[in-house]
Amino acid sequence: MTNLLPDLDPPARLLLGPGPSNVHPRVTRALSAPVVGYLDPAWFTVMDETAALLRQVYGTENRVTFPISGTGTSGMEALLVNLIEPGDKVIVGLNGYFGDRIHQIALRAGADVIPVRALWGQPIDPERVRIALKEHPGVALVAVVHGETSTGVLQPLERLGRIVREHDALLLADCVTTLGGEAVTVDAWLVDAAYSCTQKALGCPPGLSPITVGPRAWAKIERRKTPPQSWYLDLRLLAEYWLGGRAYHHTPPAPMIYALREGLRIVLEEGLQQRSTRHRTNAAALRAGLATFGLPFVAAEDCWLPALTAVQIPDTVDDAAIRTTLRDRYNIEIGGGLGPLRGKAWRIGLMGYGSTAANVLLVLAALEAALAEAGYPIQPGAAVEAAARRLGAPA
Amino acid sequence: MTNLLPDLDPPARLLLGPGPSNVHPRVTRALSAPVVGYLDPAWFTVMDETAALLRQVYGTENRVTFPISGTGTSGMEALLVNLIEPGDKVIVGLNGYFGDRIHQIALRAGADVIPVRALWGQPIDPERVRIALKEHPGVALVAVVHGETSTGVLQPLERLGRIVREHDALLLADCVTTLGGEAVTVDAWLVDAAYSCTQKALGCPPGLSPITVGPRAWAKIERRKTPPQSWYLDLRLLAEYWLGGRAYHHTPPAPMIYALREGLRIVLEEGLQQRSTRHRTNAAALRAGLATFGLPFVAAEDCWLPALTAVQIPDTVDDAAIRTTLRDRYNIEIGGGLGPLRGKAWRIGLMGYGSTAANVLLVLAALEAALAEAGYPIQPGAAVEAAARRLGAPA
Repeated sequence: MTNLLPDLDPPARLLLGPGPSNVHPRVTRALSAPVVGYLDPAWFTVMDETAALLRQVYGTENRVTFPISGTGTSGMEALLVNLIEPGDKVIVGLNGYFGDRIHQIALRAGADVIPVRALWGQPIDPERVRIALKEHPGVALVAVVHGETSTGVLQPLERLGRIVREHDALLLADCVTTLGGEAVTVDAWLVDAAYSCTQKALGCPPGLSPITVGPRAWAKIERRKTPPQSWYLDLRLLAEYWLGGRAYHHTPPAPMIYALREGLRIVLEEGLQQRSTRHRTNAAALRAGLATFGLPFVAAEDCWLPALTAVQIPDTVDDAAIRTTLRDRYNIEIGGGLGPLRGKAWRIGLMGYGSTAANVLLVLAALEAALAEAGYPIQPGAAVEAAARRLGAPA
Repeated sequence: MTNLLPDLDPPARLLLGPGPSNVHPRVTRALSAPVVGYLDPAWFTVMDETAALLRQVYGTENRVTFPISGTGTSGMEALLVNLIEPGDKVIVGLNGYFGDRIHQIALRAGADVIPVRALWGQPIDPERVRIALKEHPGVALVAVVHGETSTGVLQPLERLGRIVREHDALLLADCVTTLGGEAVTVDAWLVDAAYSCTQKALGCPPGLSPITVGPRAWAKIERRKTPPQSWYLDLRLLAEYWLGGRAYHHTPPAPMIYALREGLRIVLEEGLQQRSTRHRTNAAALRAGLATFGLPFVAAEDCWLPALTAVQIPDTVDDAAIRTTLRDRYNIEIGGGLGPLRGKAWRIGLMGYGSTAANVLLVLAALEAALAEAGYPIQPGAAVEAAARRLGAPA
């Protein structure tokens, strides 16, 4: 006899970690829409609509804008293996866990990687990129992380975009933790290619990586002498299906694309600027509350990422014990640290549907209770009070 | 102002093409379960349960058995780029569109490909594989398609498995159109690695590729001198998350895995043998009905694939016009031909939840009406009658 297992019944957690964030109820409903065939005219309409919405949310007119059928890292890999030909010089910004990931994938694509480093918690200095571009003539690509989920750093892109353009290189931006929360403007910032995910500020479940590729980056892809190492992620083949003759490549994950379409609609209904303001307001209130605990933030003061706040864990407090209390007693998930910050930082996400004033108060109240129970000195009520005051202040 | 588009409202088609097939209603419900974090203990339970169910459906005790976070082709690519090191000799069975796809991906992985061909509509002859293995000592891998969706051919694997094992090579099987419909028994057939999809006989939406890797194949992966070219599809990293220390790799697409878990549960509740019998009975009835139209089948008589029947289109009939009538008047999708069969064959799928006696009668009745309207000589009612007679006969 087979063991058939009980009905599926995962807990309905409040997801305030680095992602996934809670899925918007309208998006959950969209998941249930009927699957149709990949050559159905009704499906082509869904594809075209999703791509059009995505262009608005990315702030771009790039034709090559659609979701990759995999999670955020599949979009990272898709852009790297299509944009890099073996031997290409690639500058990678290394200031967190996801810059390291870009580095590793670029190496597997045969890149000659030139690292430009900053401390974890700091953005990449555009001037250091300028110097690297001058020292290494002929750099093909510069890759940086717009919102570093490991540290909570927001990388300014505008000046970097101009510097990279002046040196005739391409700029690739990881927008995994910014798209849908920040007002991303790929075209205005001179970003040549970008990728994101669905499960953070877009308020969708994980499963897709929305990408956009500008004309200069696309020209490099079309000039390739060898096909990219991945067939599944070959952007020319994918563009044939999404934008060209609808040539069959793979069966698209219809429910995820339905979800993305609905998530993007919700983003645009709210408005990109309003949504960005909401993320900033709630994150500022969270930070005001956390500050009362006396815990230092990982990100420098002038570059914090609204969707994710990383805060150092006091030496006297056990990381796992606090997170277990939050999860098991209050049904709240916050994230631990990645890489060198493992056990040393918590990562609190306020993303998409989860970025609300109520969630700010709740996570602060729960953290206060857990810290107090762990013997950490707390001024009762101070965190919630500071946050509420900030939430009542004009944005 | 942004254009916010109307509510999502795709048509609820009867999907009788090559896949996606209609999703089981219980699976659709599972999609809506709450997303939880990728390090949540409740999530680890879902992962372990899904992997355990998958082992049963694959007929294997392979530890390395889990879904890849992409569609079927991502599983094909994952196994090829992990199992192949540059310069490896790889025999690829070429008798249809998906064998060609394996060939293309194997080339991008640096394989020295040795094709073993058969006509489209025929299986690969195991004796020709034996000859190729003798002519090319040191072949690392033999890759064949178990159920060729382009032709409707079922490839027998048992003898092939013994031959490949005798020559100390590995056997990779594409089970995209068989898993959940056929009683696949990876261990008994000496298959060393296999991949599938979710949107055919498993009755789930597209979005995952369930894979299994046996100990001999895993040993080859662990012996690699260079990492696989893909980081996203690096099986050692994925196994660390699925089977080992739960080391973060990427955020898994929770709703798709919930759906897969439910789809696998439904498969095992029905029973693998019973399910295989259902697929065979309904396909035999479909074939009996189609035979009354006098249209030749693409697959040879002794190797037809129950989940998919490919039938030649009469010269006097317009492929697209008939399929459009089926779709627009009767809301039924059947598939057209791929590659050299484009415009020359229809592909009718009876997969998973869609393999029912009622669907057999309906698609035959609709095809009869469309063919008659197109002026093709039809004996009214003969197809439905032949199918009904076959459905009433003992299985």
